[in-house]
Amino acid sequence: MSANVEYLKCVLCGRRFADGEVYYTCPDCGPFGLLNVIYKYKEIKKNFEKKLAKPPAVNENNIWRYIDILPVDESVPRTNLRVGMTPYYKPRLLGEFLGHQNLYIKDDGQNPTASFKDRASAIGVAKAFELKKEIITCASTGNAASSLAGICASMGLKSYIFVPKTAPVAKIAQLLLFGANVFMVDGNYDQAFDLCMQASEEFGWYNRNTGYNPYLLEGKKTCALEIYEQSKGALPDYVFVSVGDGCIIGGIYKGFYDLMNLGLIEKAPKLIGVQAEGSNPFVRAYRDNKSRKLVDMVPETVADSISVGIPRASHQGLNAVYATEGEFIDVTDAEILDSLKILPRYAGVFGEPAGVTSLAGFIKMKKAGRIPDNASCAVVITGNGLKDINTAISCVNKAPVIEPTLDAVKKALKL
Amino acid sequence: MSANVEYLKCVLCGRRFADGEVYYTCPDCGPFGLLNVIYKYKEIKKNFEKKLAKPPAVNENNIWRYIDILPVDESVPRTNLRVGMTPYYKPRLLGEFLGHQNLYIKDDGQNPTASFKDRASAIGVAKAFELKKEIITCASTGNAASSLAGICASMGLKSYIFVPKTAPVAKIAQLLLFGANVFMVDGNYDQAFDLCMQASEEFGWYNRNTGYNPYLLEGKKTCALEIYEQSKGALPDYVFVSVGDGCIIGGIYKGFYDLMNLGLIEKAPKLIGVQAEGSNPFVRAYRDNKSRKLVDMVPETVADSISVGIPRASHQGLNAVYATEGEFIDVTDAEILDSLKILPRYAGVFGEPAGVTSLAGFIKMKKAGRIPDNASCAVVITGNGLKDINTAISCVNKAPVIEPTLDAVKKALKL
Repeated sequence: MSANVEYLKCVLCGRRFADGEVYYTCPDCGPFGLLNVIYKYKEIKKNFEKKLAKPPAVNENNIWRYIDILPVDESVPRTNLRVGMTPYYKPRLLGEFLGHQNLYIKDDGQNPTASFKDRASAIGVAKAFELKKEIITCASTGNAASSLAGICASMGLKSYIFVPKTAPVAKIAQLLLFGANVFMVDGNYDQAFDLCMQASEEFGWYNRNTGYNPYLLEGKKTCALEIYEQSKGALPDYVFVSVGDGCIIGGIYKGFYDLMNLGLIEKAPKLIGVQAEGSNPFVRAYRDNKSRKLVDMVPETVADSISVGIPRASHQGLNAVYATEGEFIDVTDAEILDSLKILPRYAGVFGEPAGVTSLAGFIKMKKAGRIPDNASCAVVITGNGLKDINTAISCVNKAPVIEPTLDAVKKALKL
Repeated sequence: MSANVEYLKCVLCGRRFADGEVYYTCPDCGPFGLLNVIYKYKEIKKNFEKKLAKPPAVNENNIWRYIDILPVDESVPRTNLRVGMTPYYKPRLLGEFLGHQNLYIKDDGQNPTASFKDRASAIGVAKAFELKKEIITCASTGNAASSLAGICASMGLKSYIFVPKTAPVAKIAQLLLFGANVFMVDGNYDQAFDLCMQASEEFGWYNRNTGYNPYLLEGKKTCALEIYEQSKGALPDYVFVSVGDGCIIGGIYKGFYDLMNLGLIEKAPKLIGVQAEGSNPFVRAYRDNKSRKLVDMVPETVADSISVGIPRASHQGLNAVYATEGEFIDVTDAEILDSLKILPRYAGVFGEPAGVTSLAGFIKMKKAGRIPDNASCAVVITGNGLKDINTAISCVNKAPVIEPTLDAVKKALKL
């Protein structure tokens, strides 16, 4: 708990709770009644601005820089891994290639376990320590899982983790090496999620699922705080975010929301939620007159991390886009794989399929002439390409095998 | 070129050259006559100390912080990727597990392409721009290759890269996605190196090989500069480094050497070079009365990045250990794989086999009672475990696949 939290507020009915009064969702509204953490913004502001005026010390460039506006107190044990403060690049060659110079990349594949999810896990594990929970659990398409396992390993907390058995091998390897107790669920992510919820309740494990636990979004929001700092307050006009459960885009909006409440920015960038065509409940709702209700589906896409048919953070995901007058768009798997090739080729940044879905969305809107030439655009890359090598290698031509002779080199060069 | 460079000096005959007078090695001594870059230390000192007194701005936490003591001028184009300033952790649980609290981890797997080699590639590519070279080449066991390819992609430089065809698939995938021209050599690293040298000479490509190009070591030394900053001047007593070609340990020594010449430290930590038993020419020389001469061998080890039978930076590698009164030790592949499991389990840091060979060396010396209890030890992890998933997954037990029911969970938990 942090003395800076004013209350928690149900996203559906608006009911307020004192921090610590409930652990998870609103008892009146059930599992979709997620709670937003509201801070004492006026009281925080001065100290927060003062901290931001100085760059972090060499060992302190991580999300804890923002502790004044995080839901854990300074005294709570927290991971020493460098979570957050990921690079924010202006990749000139990528901008030239795509015909849009005012383009930025937020490379969250550079987190300790190589995905955005470390931001949330860092908070979840700190909360587990605060609440003296001995076991933490989550369901995940892979990244939240390996992230939770890694952060737990750094702090000696036990974890039970549910992933679909189809998760990429690299993510499974991370999980096991980090010492998590892993259940490979013979089903999809949505089934793994439901099972995790049941097990959490049955066994009293602390539940790290972002679309349920109110504090996780607070970790995710740090990405927006960093974009604010790294863009030196000249916020991008658009931020492109890959969307599965809706938690990441919801978290990024929460960061901008907090910055508005602190009086540091006037308005948030337009948030563009990008989904895979085969897993697009948010897009369908958006097209249905900006409906607030998602219709479940059975997802299928190469972008495993956003292969979600029943988004759990539906309200926060929709709100992120609607409140910023952004939009939801979808892209094909082929467009995702194109982006998977374009990003490393022109920026030196290697993302996993879900990680570059955001870029595919940018490219699609750009090609359609729907982004003003002078608009500044930030694209969040949520996971490292090393997390899913099989998909990556399937996108590229093989290199020639040659004998170790100069003649063989000349032949390969067609000289 | 940098006005701060005083001269280049042959490591064998001591002959001095003006910066730019020769591109690679000493013409008198041939390919093993590597050149050390010597700076105008007295002139640099004041400005350098002044810069170090302030932490880097949020977008400037990278090796360019040390530009005053790097061999390229401010005006030369350089990569915008966040190279260096990798985390320096004190992993409490790992220290407890290994019975040595004063233990630090320098996690260089957190570089942009996930290995230490980005430090060198960043300098190599900047040098290629300075010299107006249009093509750069290197031979590599995999990491230097994917690193060079990534840095080149970020700056639009063409690369030709030679790797043994047995390099792990993740490294090959990176290479191809970054748009490098790749030759998979039907032979080992030593053969790939020789072929690259021939091709470089034949076609006039700029040669990035660290054990040949004098400037690359200057990139690698930044790891030592960071350890100096991150340990707040309280340098570790020992630094453990995995050794293949000898370039990394040579580079780390060069960093400490520069710090000594700047009057910022009195002496360097003892450098412990750790090799795999199946690829240990440095260890053999060390045991042979600290010989200065390496005997070639045919290497074989699971740690692909240090599988080197003919080390190219022999002089600099040996000197790093001899000058600091450190030592060379070797470890078995089994000990390497043990470390590969211990590090993620107790520190949340996932390294590749060569990346954790340094830790295996620390563990071996610790177990042998050869490290004083109060000695502070830093272990450099040179590459991310995501680079070699096949080896990692072979070390761990499979997770159980379960039906998506609570009963299945209970059964798996043996409840």
